[in-house]
Amino acid sequence: MVRTGSASVAAGPTLAVVAREAGVSVPTASKVVNGREDVAPETRRRVTEALDRLGYVRRPRFDAAKASGLVDLVVHSLDSSWSGAVLHGVEGAAHDAGLEVVVSAGLTRTRSGRPERGWLDKLTARGSSGVLFNLAELSPAQYGWLDQHRIPYVMIDPVLEPPSGVVSVGAANWHGGVTATEHLLSLGHERIAVIAGHQRKMCSSARVAGYRSALASAGIRQHPEYIRHAGFDETLAHGRMLELLDLPEPPTAVFVCSDRMALGVYEALAERKLTVPDDISVVGFDDLPEARWLTPALTTIRQPLSEMAATALRLLVRIMDGNRPESTRTELSTRLVERASTARPARLG
Amino acid sequence: MVRTGSASVAAGPTLAVVAREAGVSVPTASKVVNGREDVAPETRRRVTEALDRLGYVRRPRFDAAKASGLVDLVVHSLDSSWSGAVLHGVEGAAHDAGLEVVVSAGLTRTRSGRPERGWLDKLTARGSSGVLFNLAELSPAQYGWLDQHRIPYVMIDPVLEPPSGVVSVGAANWHGGVTATEHLLSLGHERIAVIAGHQRKMCSSARVAGYRSALASAGIRQHPEYIRHAGFDETLAHGRMLELLDLPEPPTAVFVCSDRMALGVYEALAERKLTVPDDISVVGFDDLPEARWLTPALTTIRQPLSEMAATALRLLVRIMDGNRPESTRTELSTRLVERASTARPARLG
Repeated sequence: MVRTGSASVAAGPTLAVVAREAGVSVPTASKVVNGREDVAPETRRRVTEALDRLGYVRRPRFDAAKASGLVDLVVHSLDSSWSGAVLHGVEGAAHDAGLEVVVSAGLTRTRSGRPERGWLDKLTARGSSGVLFNLAELSPAQYGWLDQHRIPYVMIDPVLEPPSGVVSVGAANWHGGVTATEHLLSLGHERIAVIAGHQRKMCSSARVAGYRSALASAGIRQHPEYIRHAGFDETLAHGRMLELLDLPEPPTAVFVCSDRMALGVYEALAERKLTVPDDISVVGFDDLPEARWLTPALTTIRQPLSEMAATALRLLVRIMDGNRPESTRTELSTRLVERASTARPARLG
Repeated sequence: MVRTGSASVAAGPTLAVVAREAGVSVPTASKVVNGREDVAPETRRRVTEALDRLGYVRRPRFDAAKASGLVDLVVHSLDSSWSGAVLHGVEGAAHDAGLEVVVSAGLTRTRSGRPERGWLDKLTARGSSGVLFNLAELSPAQYGWLDQHRIPYVMIDPVLEPPSGVVSVGAANWHGGVTATEHLLSLGHERIAVIAGHQRKMCSSARVAGYRSALASAGIRQHPEYIRHAGFDETLAHGRMLELLDLPEPPTAVFVCSDRMALGVYEALAERKLTVPDDISVVGFDDLPEARWLTPALTTIRQPLSEMAATALRLLVRIMDGNRPESTRTELSTRLVERASTARPARLG
């Protein structure tokens, strides 16, 4: 039998297959997929495992009537070079695909980091072909709403682990943490601290895990007091750096999990009349354009934001076309950008 | 008689009135308004004067069928904190007006800085409610096309003087140039150089004119060799700074017409082992977020990009509603942001 309709061509397991595998009813499997909370933990675990084992991908049916040629990009904040890089990647890839981009900073207008009420209704009324969320934190109800309205979507660097089957793109954060720490180890540092973002955020915890792994591989003892959280906030990072300097045995190097927090660290070090990198080495994360403006220019881990955004757009188009992405999670590689903020520790000179 | 239709309420002079005032036919007046080139220079001058005298404003009739709720923002490049600030302003004001924003970086994909061929057709097909152009350089044909299709538009910081009747928003560039130069004069500097952008660009020539005016008011002799053009390019600015330092009588202070060019200037000064502000004072222009990342932090002239963008959106909404803006050109004020890159000249200590 020849099946017609592009949606069927690359069809993965249906929800019915998943439900059978997990030994639950289809409505129950659907509840889990849609992030509903009225499911027993053990049932949720069984369904989630079945979803993962079978490679189930949330894949809305393509609705030609809805093909407005407009895709939506929802960002956390527009007024940053971070979102500039994301928008640059999305817009370029959208142009290549013959699509146009509607940009909304709706996530900043709610304290939760979730889209505004009413915004989702606007999407269906206008006929969005698909949505990219950057640094968003959707509620289970919002995931359910998108699925129910068959709106394709992809998450760029989601804050929390998204539910099973949700397609997302991020950086290889764990590997970036390893690279940053190995760079400092290779220079001869052993007293290496980390100033991390939010403890609960996926990207931050992965970077800290990479830091731990690199130290463990090198056989370096880990000081719990060398790990500080500053919520990706420049002012908090400034305070955390001062705390680190006040330790009986202060670090000789610090891996700061964002370039913006590194600015706060530089200011703290200048206050204490310490020189980068002679007195202390600093490695950032992101490689924002600003990293070049610091004196000394910041050595950092480059996160390919534009490429991540372009990849997300291309995955969205695949989903819109009824095809199934090869993987629900795509990670693009990070790399060390060596500038002038790291050197051998002073005592090794 | 009660007139209906919002378009009539605030109607300014019609083109017929302008044509009568200028002593030409309506089609000829229309040609001038639409930037067509097949008009004799003297006729164009008469029509342009009549347009200005009568306060004619290009004002498309409101077409409810076209009211998609989408406005377009066309920017020069997305990958910069400049466009981030513009987008931030537009998106916020659009949200307040119940509109959504389609963003396109189409201007970067053509060498001319003009929108891509075909893009304008897409606008009408999709039904744009209006367009904001940032740093754009439209051709006479493109202005004509927008008018002919009755698409409302507003220019944000247009590169060249737009044709009569086109509504635009910019910064008070001339006044910014005055402020920067007066700040340096007040510190005791007399040998003040300027590193400008493109000579033909409105915003740059206005800043240089402000510099000249401030020097003239202070009775300071102007050295032609103190005025250098670097096309808003960081690398060119670096070279221009080195040229200034090689003069028999180098300047003690420099007004750099963009923060990005100031980064190049800082690098040139570091190469020559000169210290900011002890050896030379530097004032930038824009107040991009990056200005804060420099050491010493850059004293600069703040250009209110987000506010300019929000103002442009609100003017666009007025035009969409069939009302006439009070003025075709709106300039928002600039102000000095004093940080750490300026001081009294060394010899005055």
